[in-house]
Amino acid sequence: MTLPVENLAINTIRTLVMDSVQAAKSGHPGTPMSMAPVAYLLFNELLNFDPAHPLWTQRDRFVLSSGHGSTLIYSILHLAGVEQFENGKPTGEKAVRIEDLKNFRQLNSRCPGHPEYGHTSGVEVTTGPLGQGLAMSVGQAIASKWFSAKYARDGKDLFGFNVYSLCGDGCMMEGISSEAASLAAHLKLDNLCWIYDANQITIEGSTELAFTEDVGKRFESYGWNVVRVEEDVNDLDALRSAFAEFKAEKTRPTLIIVKSVIGYGSPNMAGTAKVHGAPLGEEEIKLTKEFLGWNYEKFTVPEEVAKLFADGIQSNGAKAYAEWEKAYAEYCVRYPQEAEELQKIAAGELPENWDEGISKMWEADEKGTASRNSSGKTLNQLAAGIPWMLGGSADLAPSNKSNLTFDGAGDFGPENYAGRNFHFGIREFAMAAIANGMATCGIRSYCATFFVFCDYLRGALRLSCLMNLPVLYILSHDSIGVGEDGPTHQPVEQLAALRSMPNLVVMRPCDANEVRFAYRWYAENKKSPVCMVVTRQDLPTLPRAIEPSGDVCACSCGVQKGAYVIRDAKNPATGTFDVILMGTGSEVHICLSAQKILAEQGIFARVVSMPSMELFETQTAEYRESILPSSCTRRVAVEAGLRFGWDRYLGPNGKFIGMTGFGASAPFKQLYEFYGITAENVVKAALEN
Amino acid sequence: MTLPVENLAINTIRTLVMDSVQAAKSGHPGTPMSMAPVAYLLFNELLNFDPAHPLWTQRDRFVLSSGHGSTLIYSILHLAGVEQFENGKPTGEKAVRIEDLKNFRQLNSRCPGHPEYGHTSGVEVTTGPLGQGLAMSVGQAIASKWFSAKYARDGKDLFGFNVYSLCGDGCMMEGISSEAASLAAHLKLDNLCWIYDANQITIEGSTELAFTEDVGKRFESYGWNVVRVEEDVNDLDALRSAFAEFKAEKTRPTLIIVKSVIGYGSPNMAGTAKVHGAPLGEEEIKLTKEFLGWNYEKFTVPEEVAKLFADGIQSNGAKAYAEWEKAYAEYCVRYPQEAEELQKIAAGELPENWDEGISKMWEADEKGTASRNSSGKTLNQLAAGIPWMLGGSADLAPSNKSNLTFDGAGDFGPENYAGRNFHFGIREFAMAAIANGMATCGIRSYCATFFVFCDYLRGALRLSCLMNLPVLYILSHDSIGVGEDGPTHQPVEQLAALRSMPNLVVMRPCDANEVRFAYRWYAENKKSPVCMVVTRQDLPTLPRAIEPSGDVCACSCGVQKGAYVIRDAKNPATGTFDVILMGTGSEVHICLSAQKILAEQGIFARVVSMPSMELFETQTAEYRESILPSSCTRRVAVEAGLRFGWDRYLGPNGKFIGMTGFGASAPFKQLYEFYGITAENVVKAALEN
Repeated sequence: MTLPVENLAINTIRTLVMDSVQAAKSGHPGTPMSMAPVAYLLFNELLNFDPAHPLWTQRDRFVLSSGHGSTLIYSILHLAGVEQFENGKPTGEKAVRIEDLKNFRQLNSRCPGHPEYGHTSGVEVTTGPLGQGLAMSVGQAIASKWFSAKYARDGKDLFGFNVYSLCGDGCMMEGISSEAASLAAHLKLDNLCWIYDANQITIEGSTELAFTEDVGKRFESYGWNVVRVEEDVNDLDALRSAFAEFKAEKTRPTLIIVKSVIGYGSPNMAGTAKVHGAPLGEEEIKLTKEFLGWNYEKFTVPEEVAKLFADGIQSNGAKAYAEWEKAYAEYCVRYPQEAEELQKIAAGELPENWDEGISKMWEADEKGTASRNSSGKTLNQLAAGIPWMLGGSADLAPSNKSNLTFDGAGDFGPENYAGRNFHFGIREFAMAAIANGMATCGIRSYCATFFVFCDYLRGALRLSCLMNLPVLYILSHDSIGVGEDGPTHQPVEQLAALRSMPNLVVMRPCDANEVRFAYRWYAENKKSPVCMVVTRQDLPTLPRAIEPSGDVCACSCGVQKGAYVIRDAKNPATGTFDVILMGTGSEVHICLSAQKILAEQGIFARVVSMPSMELFETQTAEYRESILPSSCTRRVAVEAGLRFGWDRYLGPNGKFIGMTGFGASAPFKQLYEFYGITAENVVKAALEN
Repeated sequence: MTLPVENLAINTIRTLVMDSVQAAKSGHPGTPMSMAPVAYLLFNELLNFDPAHPLWTQRDRFVLSSGHGSTLIYSILHLAGVEQFENGKPTGEKAVRIEDLKNFRQLNSRCPGHPEYGHTSGVEVTTGPLGQGLAMSVGQAIASKWFSAKYARDGKDLFGFNVYSLCGDGCMMEGISSEAASLAAHLKLDNLCWIYDANQITIEGSTELAFTEDVGKRFESYGWNVVRVEEDVNDLDALRSAFAEFKAEKTRPTLIIVKSVIGYGSPNMAGTAKVHGAPLGEEEIKLTKEFLGWNYEKFTVPEEVAKLFADGIQSNGAKAYAEWEKAYAEYCVRYPQEAEELQKIAAGELPENWDEGISKMWEADEKGTASRNSSGKTLNQLAAGIPWMLGGSADLAPSNKSNLTFDGAGDFGPENYAGRNFHFGIREFAMAAIANGMATCGIRSYCATFFVFCDYLRGALRLSCLMNLPVLYILSHDSIGVGEDGPTHQPVEQLAALRSMPNLVVMRPCDANEVRFAYRWYAENKKSPVCMVVTRQDLPTLPRAIEPSGDVCACSCGVQKGAYVIRDAKNPATGTFDVILMGTGSEVHICLSAQKILAEQGIFARVVSMPSMELFETQTAEYRESILPSSCTRRVAVEAGLRFGWDRYLGPNGKFIGMTGFGASAPFKQLYEFYGITAENVVKAALEN
């Protein structure tokens, strides 16, 4: 049953929702109105969550996967009185004040159109792009399991938590939810609970138009515990019993299917698509409030409702947090090393001596090794130094070289939740979203696939960027160098496509030492996802000692600066050079060969290695000018991809040697010849210039 | 049971597979070896397919969704003796000759690493990127239903066909297969049969590592007819009976789950990941051939096997085709108009007077309309003139304005397979792949979603490009002009990301008339997918009659050429202009406003509208120079996206007014102010230049 005051609280959510959307003149009131009882129950009874400590590591997570229903989370965060934290510290303000609700969807409001991670405390991930919230919740549930397994001591778990996610028909239709659900059951994540608002209405109308599958049976097929709430969602006891089933379940994730009426309470619009994505209008709001028996002004929280939350989540949360704090203080005394690790994880810092493993330079070697190999070695060295680096591949670990092979790394799964290697299966999109979810819990997560298939996970990569999560993407087989697999497996446009994404750092290192320094940059950065784009084919390891500076460090700084002179050639007479050859990754070696041929013809060519355009763009104008002096307009860029994006370095006279279309199936050396990506053609372009 | 000669045929496939992969020193023998009986049975008994007429419109389709197992299809195409057609005409050569198998994965071979549509006759779609073959097969099954419903007469169906697709664990794990399967059942595509090779081995090892769901139950939950072949896959009768169940089923698509042993026949590698993606090696091939009782030379087709196919698919196919040809000749006499349409569809041509509806110019209008609106109207006008334009949205039709609203358009579904509007559901990736499948059958398919979510379907868009399919992507809500929905819904990098894709034409029209001509270009083109990038917000309809040329046609040619002078301003004294302002879409209007302000200050600015960089790049150097004379280095480009890709037109001195990162949630006019994408800033940049 539902007490009158509980009902009042639920209707408070509904009216805040309607009022906010009406004030904004846009938004999505339908789902928040129908799901208000779920939000109420979760926050005021179920979540282990202290509004005063929204960053508490053991808090239960709530992910609103149907992000368009953002007023639901804003309303409940307001009622719960969650504190606003910024940069890990309290601001002294509430996360969502009544004026924020009034400013829903306005510039600089704490209540943007869709919930934004890092912007409003209590918002655990950015949602809106459908399906991804669900997959991120799997990542958080994984993180919970890992923290428990790794750090719990003496049979007492101060680290595990439950993850709840609310979703609608849209999330259920998106393929990513299938990928994530299948994996969640496989991993036996019994701490994960999805609540499916089966309101059967989408933008185009009834789900009868396009979605008639049996969702419950589908989840049973994955291995989920499926609970159905067929009764009135306003009867809290039905919900309570469903959540009790979740809490009692010990091997499976739980799906609670809640049959609901979209826009509940609206006499003329409930149950229709009209209420999905537009304000109800003043008149209909009036009628709805009448139906709900609501007798207050707009944007009102009745006193008894405020008290209900004070006695509920605020009181319970404070108590739970205080208990945890006490227990954790004891833990810190007994397990100082673990405590230090946990503190660093929470702060996004690295362990001391984290870089020991990667500090040794690779020796020069003409034959060299594929950068996927040096990437694999470096990943292992780095992960050995950062115990909370976890990740894996979408079934391509042997090809991506993404497995952690050192002692104790282990596979993550029900037999070993402290394992660090993930078998994500052939599910690239869910993999990346899961990595995002893990990263929101402080884990340095990474994932891997063939470079060309970054297209499959692009939606999640965008959210890594938007959420400022330093997720590592290991993307091997990076060009026509893939060879025989042919055009479906040969990236040509992916470099440009990734370079266009804000806050993403794309690294395409040219040899094992650049790989090493690229990984260093990744590890030290706290806010940008990094794509490590590496070859299938061998690359020489370049001699570094003979560089003009004679200084090994110069190379490291070079990588971190995005571009640097890897081998200069100056006319002794003039002290300057005639042409600049630029390249990335495997093509730097073609530039170096061309440099030699040009030298034989008395042409002095500077070779610039440009592992990361993004990092180069953040350097000072002076630095950039020092590498690419504007006086030298004779330039050739070489990359086994498309020209798109290179003109800013080529200038009006520069030439580009690369691809103009898709590749082909053949041994890779033949392909380089066939497409003319050769030292000879670089020389020709340099001379024509 | 399996006759000895059938067994020999099946083992011939297996040995051709092993020999090809061994010769190439790379490839994927495992699946082809286990699925050889399925391929044999399909081609020699089940498919309605005439090897002499591989483009026969009513042929059954076979899609190898696990494209890495390409030797399976190459072997069977060889045995079936399929003719090679190019540009719709027979070449007189076989599609796959024995020397093509010997040249597997070599440059210019008919047997590239993964099957390529348009390259090898009998290959119905390009596969390799997992899951997409399945979704494309749904598109083909849809096309079959539509052709039947639209063109069958007198109770005789000369147009419908069955579609078979073979897939493995990888395809099943990919989310797109869930999206496509759910929709296929919803649409009751009983002409669709997927064969799932449940060999339980992936690259990383056993599917136990990541994939333990009950696939059969999952498909039942979608509404599929699920048939299990638990017996030995080498017993053809078990397969025969499964396919009989498919043929008897009248409302549901069918999934046949075949338990198999990967690399069947290999004594030391069968059933392991080792045989998935690498040659067996000469020694193991020898042992395997011994196991199979194979006593022939490499690359041999025993005579009795050749005869089996001559008596099977060749004889049956010829007979079926001849019968069809006769019946179709009668049809053509009785239904000349339908026949003419069908002929045009097969040839990729347009009906006469197809452009009547779009031939009228929009009148100038200061208030104007959103380009999504003019796009919607133009789409309707165009579709009215091209009866085989079909498509829809991923549940955003009211927002994308992608519904066909004229009389008789109707919704596609079991009640009306002649309907033209599709409700794809919130399944962007499957939607695009389905559109690809439809396009391979001659349908002018289109699909629609928010521009930002083209990230979700990028993998399929890439295949549109690779397969030269003129699929139309209607992508509305194209910038921060989205407004309140905020950064998750505001594209900033998508323009650059799409412009980087080979063979894609991105159109961002600035007003209703540009929209019209953009659609015209789309319709007339036969080989490039087109992205129609349109606004949510209103755009003025520009006066066209007052253009310098006074010629309305000039505008049309301008759009088709990618960029053109939309309003010139020349100093009467010098006959030239001082600065070039370039823009696309909504920002062209900002350029025009800036032009006015500059004129007041005595600065003459040329305004160039650049609806499509790709089309502009294909123009002659003279044309490009005439629009952007190199003498004028004072240039400003304006686009509510990122600068990436603009430098080629800006040159070293140009300025860019646009976004530098993600957007924000607020009313769109405020956002343009906030990010400084204003006429005032364009003026400032022009003056600074």
